[in-house]
Amino acid sequence: MITGKQIRMIAFDADDTLWVNEPFYREVEFAIEDMLSNYVDSEQFLDLLYERELANLKVFGYGAKGFTLSLIETVIELTDHRVTTGHIQKIIEMGKSLLTKPIEFLPDVESTIKKLSADFPLMIITKGDLFDQESKVARSGIAPLFQHVEIVSEKTPEVYQRILEQYDIAPDEFCMIGNSLKSDILPVLEIGGNAVHIPFHTTWVHEHVDPEILANYHFTTVTGIRKLTEIFNLNSDF
Amino acid sequence: MITGKQIRMIAFDADDTLWVNEPFYREVEFAIEDMLSNYVDSEQFLDLLYERELANLKVFGYGAKGFTLSLIETVIELTDHRVTTGHIQKIIEMGKSLLTKPIEFLPDVESTIKKLSADFPLMIITKGDLFDQESKVARSGIAPLFQHVEIVSEKTPEVYQRILEQYDIAPDEFCMIGNSLKSDILPVLEIGGNAVHIPFHTTWVHEHVDPEILANYHFTTVTGIRKLTEIFNLNSDF
Repeated sequence: MITGKQIRMIAFDADDTLWVNEPFYREVEFAIEDMLSNYVDSEQFLDLLYERELANLKVFGYGAKGFTLSLIETVIELTDHRVTTGHIQKIIEMGKSLLTKPIEFLPDVESTIKKLSADFPLMIITKGDLFDQESKVARSGIAPLFQHVEIVSEKTPEVYQRILEQYDIAPDEFCMIGNSLKSDILPVLEIGGNAVHIPFHTTWVHEHVDPEILANYHFTTVTGIRKLTEIFNLNSDF
Repeated sequence: MITGKQIRMIAFDADDTLWVNEPFYREVEFAIEDMLSNYVDSEQFLDLLYERELANLKVFGYGAKGFTLSLIETVIELTDHRVTTGHIQKIIEMGKSLLTKPIEFLPDVESTIKKLSADFPLMIITKGDLFDQESKVARSGIAPLFQHVEIVSEKTPEVYQRILEQYDIAPDEFCMIGNSLKSDILPVLEIGGNAVHIPFHTTWVHEHVDPEILANYHFTTVTGIRKLTEIFNLNSDF
């Protein structure tokens, strides 16, 4: 447990930690499978899409725009050009819907963040497209409860180190909260920080981590964000 | 002139100030016009593309991925679906080429930045896609000459104000160098900062500013980055 340590900054991942994200991507994939069910097999589609996404990651980075372009590449290739430009227009509309969807908070997020913000400086550290992430933070309405918002293209130990140096925080004074073992937990533990994992039911396969690597580290796992008030010794009656 | 003032931070725009950017976008547009010359009229194409880009700006933000998606929308609509999925694949390839092109410095950039960096803290403030901009800064090889790199989604007076507060710099101690009157010059003058304009031959129409608004402000215009060594009183024999 973190109790007893002097935590000077609690940082939160945003997508699938504060609000729903990954399931919206899955919905788009289902909708496309449905739209193209005469042409493509679901498993083939998801396999080739993942292959395209991984290959494009080093060119596009993370986010809905790169996802949409990977989708278009995938369906053209998979249908051997039988997909129509009408289908492609629909795919672009679905991509846009990912960027404009209203924020859907996970349970207890607003009350827990409000409570924690009274006792700790809070920040958001989120990975992805700058414009998309800024827009979501703004739409969420809870941005004023966070002292800093850092949007990064990748969550590596070096990136966390740079952020901690920028705000003059030692790793053992820092706690990261998030749903991704690969992006939120492991890199923070690697630089000597603290981390609390809040698993989410849908995690992109690219974010999975070998359990053997994790076995070398100590971190806390909770079933929901509300449990943080206990971990950080706050009155949890809310 | 800025001479005599105590400048504590010189910040540079990157695209079309340090290295070529906009002409690569124009090249893609020409290539698509050429590819679709049987279907579309050049003027119609550029008009509709600009319309799509402006409409999409609030969803996609700036950058090559949004540009590529706007291109696809434009050609489908303009050709009334006669464009083929093969054409769309080519457009995506062209979009990717914008994200992977080698850095092409503008004249005297490397020598001038090196010289200035010996006497002033330098930073880059660039607008656009996080992943793309980070990748360009890294590929440029001159990142070590800059103390800070700020990638922002929009260059407003508020954004410049936030950056100056973050680094504890007063507006009159700050000088911004860039090619865009709308993004690099006007917002900095509005918050009481200094600015040097280095016009570039190709500027996206969205970045144009009404000359009457500019007439209210004082700023310096130079024909090339090399002139900065005179403005900042450095020995310009290099």
